[in-house]
This record gives sequence, structure tokens and C-alpha cells, in this order.
Amino acid sequence: MTERLQHKIDLKTKPLGSLGILEKIALQIGKAQNSLSPVLKNPSIVVFAGDHGIVEEGVSAYPQEVTYQMVMNFLSGGAAINVFSKQHGIAINVVDAGVNFNFESQSGLIDAKIRKGTKNFRFEKAMNREELDKCFSVADRIVTDIFNLDCNIIGFGEMGIGNTSSATMIMSSICNLPIKDCTGKGTMISNNQLANKIEILEKCQLFHGLINDPIEILQTYGGFEIAQICGAMISAFRKNMIIMVDGFISSAAFLIAYKLYPEIKFNAIFCHLSDEYGHRYLLEYLEAEPLIGLKMRLGEGTGCAVAYPLIESATRFLNEMASFESAGISTKSTV
Amino acid sequence: MTERLQHKIDLKTKPLGSLGILEKIALQIGKAQNSLSPVLKNPSIVVFAGDHGIVEEGVSAYPQEVTYQMVMNFLSGGAAINVFSKQHGIAINVVDAGVNFNFESQSGLIDAKIRKGTKNFRFEKAMNREELDKCFSVADRIVTDIFNLDCNIIGFGEMGIGNTSSATMIMSSICNLPIKDCTGKGTMISNNQLANKIEILEKCQLFHGLINDPIEILQTYGGFEIAQICGAMISAFRKNMIIMVDGFISSAAFLIAYKLYPEIKFNAIFCHLSDEYGHRYLLEYLEAEPLIGLKMRLGEGTGCAVAYPLIESATRFLNEMASFESAGISTKSTV
Repeated sequence: MTERLQHKIDLKTKPLGSLGILEKIALQIGKAQNSLSPVLKNPSIVVFAGDHGIVEEGVSAYPQEVTYQMVMNFLSGGAAINVFSKQHGIAINVVDAGVNFNFESQSGLIDAKIRKGTKNFRFEKAMNREELDKCFSVADRIVTDIFNLDCNIIGFGEMGIGNTSSATMIMSSICNLPIKDCTGKGTMISNNQLANKIEILEKCQLFHGLINDPIEILQTYGGFEIAQICGAMISAFRKNMIIMVDGFISSAAFLIAYKLYPEIKFNAIFCHLSDEYGHRYLLEYLEAEPLIGLKMRLGEGTGCAVAYPLIESATRFLNEMASFESAGISTKSTV
Repeated sequence: MTERLQHKIDLKTKPLGSLGILEKIALQIGKAQNSLSPVLKNPSIVVFAGDHGIVEEGVSAYPQEVTYQMVMNFLSGGAAINVFSKQHGIAINVVDAGVNFNFESQSGLIDAKIRKGTKNFRFEKAMNREELDKCFSVADRIVTDIFNLDCNIIGFGEMGIGNTSSATMIMSSICNLPIKDCTGKGTMISNNQLANKIEILEKCQLFHGLINDPIEILQTYGGFEIAQICGAMISAFRKNMIIMVDGFISSAAFLIAYKLYPEIKFNAIFCHLSDEYGHRYLLEYLEAEPLIGLKMRLGEGTGCAVAYPLIESATRFLNEMASFESAGISTKSTV
């Protein structure tokens, strides 16, 4: 199939390879779907929200209440992810994975609350094993429901004050990189606060010691939204869906999924390079080439949403462009 | 206006600066339109096609007939620019600026033919001054017609076997860089052909001597499609339209326009970094930050078309996102 797809790409009316990364994406999606005419159906983004015990240590610039307030903002359509998803006809679902707030039941919000925030991993594991298992099972249910609506491409976003700290710990553990190389300013803390964040996270790593098992890493550092994203990615992979990977937090969730199922990478499109410090090294570890690099660092799945039209361009040129033969165009002179 | 726009951007429900380059684009368009709520109306791409006398020297991998064949492909909707423009609701016009072929009159094709290809600038100027003037006047007419259809954002693409050679000469002359730093493989010639192309173009530069006047540079090296793009950019700037700059060839046309009207840069969005070798240095000369870098090198305006949704995302977040106050979200803790 690879050879037939590449042949089809090469016969399109353009110089060989001149659509660059779009050609790689077309090849990847064609291979994943085992089709010379792959199609993207009903794109969907799920935004998982959760709170983090580690915020007690003062790692974030914003108060914890912003997590639930932003969930309300998602539900009323005022956040960046709403705007970009609407622009591209991408369906959105918002999941309460473990926000420290009692939401009323409402349309658009999926209740998958494990607990009102993880425990503070400075002194104990973020969650117990039962809670982690529950993250995976609810995420599988959520993705299955969306898959059953004839969706074959899905992205995952997150909201959770403090969650760059969780992502840093996961990245440091999996990639075997020092905390300082994995720590960024999150929602834009000051340089002093960054130094403080690094110091705190180094203490956390000392407290728990080096952990090798990806499941135990996830259980130790959380959060609920990261664990549910990880579970959702695995569920999407099992259904052979195309997975849009967003920025730093979502990529940390992907790291765990990748350690458990290395072949998930064939289905993953790395939508953007985040401006959050560690993301570059995380993508290097995965040998992943991000589609865009707009210096965004917002999360919510916004990288997936703005990159989606480029992914669609890849399948469209493969399906809709004329070939040299069909257009009656002379091919390259022999050299 | 700059301050008020930045204030509006900063009050949106997201960490400060977290939409990266999209925030810069929103600010730029708001300033250009002198509006806190800028809008993009009826996006349009004009593809100018022309032939080049320099192909007699063997600088291209494809025969000259591919220029007119590709024009036919544009008109029947089978080229990459057709696919991507259709995807994003961008209107396309195709202009015969000087193709070596007699087209029948047909809808979608604008006849602005100066002559059936430029002269070979190895031994004489590509065009005379009257022809160049005509390029500017017809381009102004074309852009005016589109502007009158209530379009305020316009991109320019090109097709012309041999036109990377013209663009190289323009870039070398304006940026004062050696030919070899400005020469790429175009439609993918071999390494031997590239060395040959550089040698030929160096001879052309020796023949004409160093030229400083931007108008004379354009007249000397052509082509008709590049001169018309240059004229079209200036016309769009005078109408205060947003100008989408495509890859290597279009950027070379922009170089001339920029030398004549430096303030045109305020209206220009550099849509992508082309994989054509010299483009990186050309953008550096302009201190321009391209939106995307997908390693594309196709021309036709395809970089504008695939980048357009990102530009639209910039105006949309400015117009549609909630503010911290309207969404009732806590702001950053005081540090």
C-alpha cells in the first residue's frame, strides 16, 4: 500500500515532493486507513479537565478555580478551542475528569469525575490504581461513543491549573531528562516562580525515586485529565482512528500511550510545536515532526483545531488533484 | 489603536501571549484595518502565468509547454491551488501574463498577455520599459476588479517554467547576496543541473552588471508574471488590502514592491517558508516571520491557500473569544 500510495502522490500535477509535509501526512493517513483514497470523517476534539493537588505548592500563576471557570467558558462557547473548532466544523466535547467543583448536569459536559482533583504528588501518589483504571475505562467509553457517530479523526485537549507540572514529571521520567529541561512557564509564571517550580518538582522526583513503569508514572504524577487522554488515545488507536496530538500536556499523555503501544505512532499526527519549554525535546524523543509552530502555548486542543485544515488539505490533494496523465501534462525531461 | 488592540487581545480568556503568532497577525490586521474588530472578506488568489526566455539555457527540468498545460489544469480545477482554494472558499483567477501559447477566450482566464514569453536575459533585458509599465497597469486593473467585489484579502501565485531563475536574479540584486545563495532546485533539477544553473545565472549577472534600481532589476530579469504580481501587490497595498505573500517567486516580486513602497510590509502576511533554497534568506532580509513551514515548494499560491485558515483564526479569536470579565474568570494571581 505504501508503494501504491507514493505512486499516486508522485503522479499528481506538481513537482515531485513539492507538497512537503502534506505528502507525508497523506501517505500516513492512507496507510493507516489502508486506502488510496483516505477520508476524514466528522473530526472531533475532546477537552478533558481536571484539578491537581500539586497546586498547593504554588506551581501555577492562576488560582485553581480557573479550571472550573474555563470549563464553564468551554460550555458557553467563549474559549479559543470553541472559536477554532467552530471555524473548521470540528465537534467538541468537554469532560469533567476531576475538577474541584460541583457542575450541574448539562448538555456538552460529560461527567467522568474521578475525584475533585488529584492528591498532591509532593507527598503521595496523585491517584490510586483503581482511579487510574477508571480513567482508562471512562475514556474508552467516551471515545467509543464518538467513534459510533462515524468519526475517524480525533484530537484531545486539556484544561487543568497545575497540569504542566504533571506533564513535566511524566516527560522527565519517560525521556530520562532532568526536570529543568522539561519545565516551562505554563500559564506564564515569572522567572523566580519558574526556579521555584523546578525546585519543587525536583523534590517530588526525589521523594518518589526514579520510576520506570509507564503506568506507575501516570498514577504517581497524574492528573486525571492526562490519564483520561492517555486512555482515550489508546482507545482511538484500537479503533484505528487518526489521533491529533496537541501540545505539551497532550504529548505527555501520548508518551505513556506510546510506551504501552509503540505502534500508536502510526496513527498520530503531531499538530504543533508548543512554545512551552519542554515540548521541543519531547517531540525529539518521539522523533516527531510537528505540522506547525505558531509559538502557541494554550492547550485546550487549540493546536489540533488550527492544524486540522492542513491535515484535511493532505487528504484532499490526494483525492482531488489531477494526475499528469489525466491533465495531459508533460513530465520531467529525462536528465 | 495598537494599544487598544493589544489590550483587547490580552483580555481574552487565555494566558497572556499564548496564541503566539496568531496574536501578532490579529494585531497586524487590526492595525491595517484600523479596527478593533477586523474582518476578512471574500479572500481571493490570483495566479499569474508567464514564460521565460531564459529556459533556452536549460535551467529547468520541465519543458516550457508545461506552463500552458498547467494553466489548462488550473482552468479545469485539477491543480493543487484549485483543491486548497476550494477547501477554504477562496476565489481563484488565472492570468495569462505572457504564456507562450494561444489560449481561447474562456471563463476564469484573464488575458493580460504582454508577449509570448520574456526575452532570454542571458543576452538582453527580459522586457522593455513599456512592457513593464503595461504589466503594472494590467495588474492594477485586475486587482481593482477583485477589490470592487468586496474582497479585502488577496494572495498571488504564479506558474512559469524557468521563473525561479528570474526570482534568483531579483533576490541576488536586491539583497546583495551571491547567486549561489539565491539559487534552488526549482522543480527539482539534479545537483549537476543546479551547478549549471548557478553558472549560467552568474554569467547573466556579469553580462548586465550590478543593477541597483528595483524597476530596472525587474525589467532586466522578468518575468511578466513576476512583474504583474509586483504591480498587483502595489495596487492591493494602495487599496489597503491584506496581502498574502506566497513562496520564493512571489516573495521576489514582493522584494521589488517593498523597495518601492516600504510600508507595504504592514499589509503583508508571509504565508509560508518555501523549501526552495533561497527563500529562507529572502525572508531574513525582509525580517519576515512566515506562518508555516511545511517544506512545500510548489508555487501557484498554494502557500497562501493552506495558510489562509490560520489568518482567519487570528481575526476570529479577536472577534469571538470571551474576555476574562465577560466569562467571569479569575485573572492571574499577583506575583
